[in-house]
Amino acid sequence: MRIMRASEFQIQRDAEQGTQEQNEAVRDIISEVKRDGDDALRRLSAKFDGVSVDQFLVTDAEVEAAYAKVDEAFLSALREAAVNIRLFHEKQRRTSWMDLQPDGTLLGQIMRPLKRVGVYVPGGKAAYPSSVLMNAIPAIVAGVPEIVMVTPPATGGKAGIDPYILVAAAEAGVKEIYRVGGAQAVAALAYGTASIPRVDKIFGPGNIYVALAKRHVYGVVDIDSFAGPSEIAILADESADPAYAAADLLSQAEHDEMASAILVTPSAELAEAVALEVERQLASLPRRDIARKSIDSFGAVLTVESMPEGIDVINRLAPEHLELMVRDPLGMLGKIENAGAIFLGDYSSEPVGDYWAGPNHIIPTNGTARFSSPVNVDDFMKKSSMIYYSKEALLQNGHKIMTLARHEGLEAHARAIEIRLEKEGKQG
Amino acid sequence: MRIMRASEFQIQRDAEQGTQEQNEAVRDIISEVKRDGDDALRRLSAKFDGVSVDQFLVTDAEVEAAYAKVDEAFLSALREAAVNIRLFHEKQRRTSWMDLQPDGTLLGQIMRPLKRVGVYVPGGKAAYPSSVLMNAIPAIVAGVPEIVMVTPPATGGKAGIDPYILVAAAEAGVKEIYRVGGAQAVAALAYGTASIPRVDKIFGPGNIYVALAKRHVYGVVDIDSFAGPSEIAILADESADPAYAAADLLSQAEHDEMASAILVTPSAELAEAVALEVERQLASLPRRDIARKSIDSFGAVLTVESMPEGIDVINRLAPEHLELMVRDPLGMLGKIENAGAIFLGDYSSEPVGDYWAGPNHIIPTNGTARFSSPVNVDDFMKKSSMIYYSKEALLQNGHKIMTLARHEGLEAHARAIEIRLEKEGKQG
Repeated sequence: MRIMRASEFQIQRDAEQGTQEQNEAVRDIISEVKRDGDDALRRLSAKFDGVSVDQFLVTDAEVEAAYAKVDEAFLSALREAAVNIRLFHEKQRRTSWMDLQPDGTLLGQIMRPLKRVGVYVPGGKAAYPSSVLMNAIPAIVAGVPEIVMVTPPATGGKAGIDPYILVAAAEAGVKEIYRVGGAQAVAALAYGTASIPRVDKIFGPGNIYVALAKRHVYGVVDIDSFAGPSEIAILADESADPAYAAADLLSQAEHDEMASAILVTPSAELAEAVALEVERQLASLPRRDIARKSIDSFGAVLTVESMPEGIDVINRLAPEHLELMVRDPLGMLGKIENAGAIFLGDYSSEPVGDYWAGPNHIIPTNGTARFSSPVNVDDFMKKSSMIYYSKEALLQNGHKIMTLARHEGLEAHARAIEIRLEKEGKQG
Repeated sequence: MRIMRASEFQIQRDAEQGTQEQNEAVRDIISEVKRDGDDALRRLSAKFDGVSVDQFLVTDAEVEAAYAKVDEAFLSALREAAVNIRLFHEKQRRTSWMDLQPDGTLLGQIMRPLKRVGVYVPGGKAAYPSSVLMNAIPAIVAGVPEIVMVTPPATGGKAGIDPYILVAAAEAGVKEIYRVGGAQAVAALAYGTASIPRVDKIFGPGNIYVALAKRHVYGVVDIDSFAGPSEIAILADESADPAYAAADLLSQAEHDEMASAILVTPSAELAEAVALEVERQLASLPRRDIARKSIDSFGAVLTVESMPEGIDVINRLAPEHLELMVRDPLGMLGKIENAGAIFLGDYSSEPVGDYWAGPNHIIPTNGTARFSSPVNVDDFMKKSSMIYYSKEALLQNGHKIMTLARHEGLEAHARAIEIRLEKEGKQG
């Protein structure tokens, strides 16, 4: 693993916008689904998934059959994880509020769940039941009454949907699952078909076609975000355990050749030790080819002059996952401006967050922690403003409202106030 | 104003995606700004605004000079409105929180303001200082340290920026204003130039080029939403005052020929009365040509069989503004699923919300209240998860985390846990 001065390091990964061909392909797929609905979905599933789909809706019997195929220890652990995830997200729930003013005016914010959301679950080689929980449980906690899952009709190229995906969906509380994937699934969620009524918002990662389709339908429905390759940054001082740091770096590097694993430290000794440990541990990993490429292309041990410089480097990286392996992690927390999830102390290994502790593992990547947040209950809710303006307040303030409206050249706005003031015998 | 059965009414306004030429023009502008920075901004300002810009940053002296040009009564009303807006948004502020578990684990959500946001202020004929307040004050309340405003170098085709815009910005607390507009301003905010450092999120409405540019840079930075033409829906029973209802409908119709003003009522008598009142009041409006076109194209009085049907119509419209002109508006509030801002009672005329009461007047349009919210303090903040996992908790749960990771084929994830369990003498 290369060691270099942080000041010499540049990471540059643009948001994926696809080639022109890919964008055109996606546009065509969306038009086709808008025009032909279920027929289009059937044609496109045959074309891209090689599957002839009769009924899109997964039946209860199929979900039951999936339970029979799932390992007991896995199911038990999954259930416990689901409880942790639910508890953490329940603490995020917000209630509508009102502000009561002495003149009788009431102002408020009404918080409501979205009515219908769609969760895309990819059907690539790696099926991640944990991600099903992470998208569906916050929706359940928010109170979304209709949660729809879509996933390709064949997971990892094998016939049928992976039973672990179906079981995770059922455990999370998803009752409506459709076997359809790709850009066509996104189009169906956005515009609706006879079989699949449209949703209000689409969540979940997918391949480039899925990502482009989400970008394309954004505005017709809401979307969550653009997921990029996984990232970890560790900010460490000489107190850090090199073996722990190396193991945690590799846990992200094994995800994807594009994943990024970075150690930032002012300790030259730690830098050397972690770089060695990475090599040592990497050699025996089943996914060592992937991890190797990730480490070589996007991994680095970055040395800094001081902790303040290290913090600055982290804030510029805005990593998805940040581990603070330092003597006083709490004292550093206030200085971290940009990081999706922050892990403190020796036992907060990143996989604890991926699977178990409760906070969401769907976290902004590619520097977008500058402006976005891990998936959370707010993402499944919307707000309305409430205004009950009292007669007293209108008599008191009406003429000032009219002044502002008339300045902006909006006379009908002013008159909507004036007509009320006149009726109450108090002209503006 | 046409009267029809609600069941016969269809409103269909697709999200604006622009023509291919417009999209290509925007892509070119963005590439040019990415490549040539300030030089590109100068060229494009000369080309599109007909203005030769030397320094983009508006000086303090210019802002001071603007104050001298602004009407006293206006300034006084604006200041009072700003106080109301600030107070309402302060109630939205959220704090970071932690959950302390008996095994020593701490989990939390850290709430932080974005560091730098950009507010686009259009420079068309109508300069709206009220919108400057509505975008900038929530940013101030959220604690955003750097708030940048961009606006075309010539407002409404006149030389210079409208002094009312500059004064509203100063009153809101904006200290960094650049004279640049159009897609080039959006590109500068997203990618940064020598004069204009990049921001984390872009707010504010604009023409089609601005809207397309925002869509294009979405992902590189965050954006607020896609603003469409203004809308009002009034749900009224026989207790409503037809003159008030008509005045409020017209207050939105005057905005824009594309604006939509709709009354929904089970009362045939009220339907007739409001339709007549609209004609009567419309005749004397300065902006009657605009309002006429809006009413004819997108306005309607919709009759329903019953209040439940009326509520259903409203929920399908998902209007930006909703007025409940009914005997028991509070009793109806819980049944409204989709509406951006809800106005209750006789004195809550929609312009009260546009200018004065405190809730934000930037509200989702075009049915997007299904999934989005009025501008609020959360829009200027981001969340990070915090995980401090205790040794006790890891020893207790580590092997279950490993079970989940191994099922997903992520051995390095499992080993990051295992290496800690081994060191503590308790193998997974």
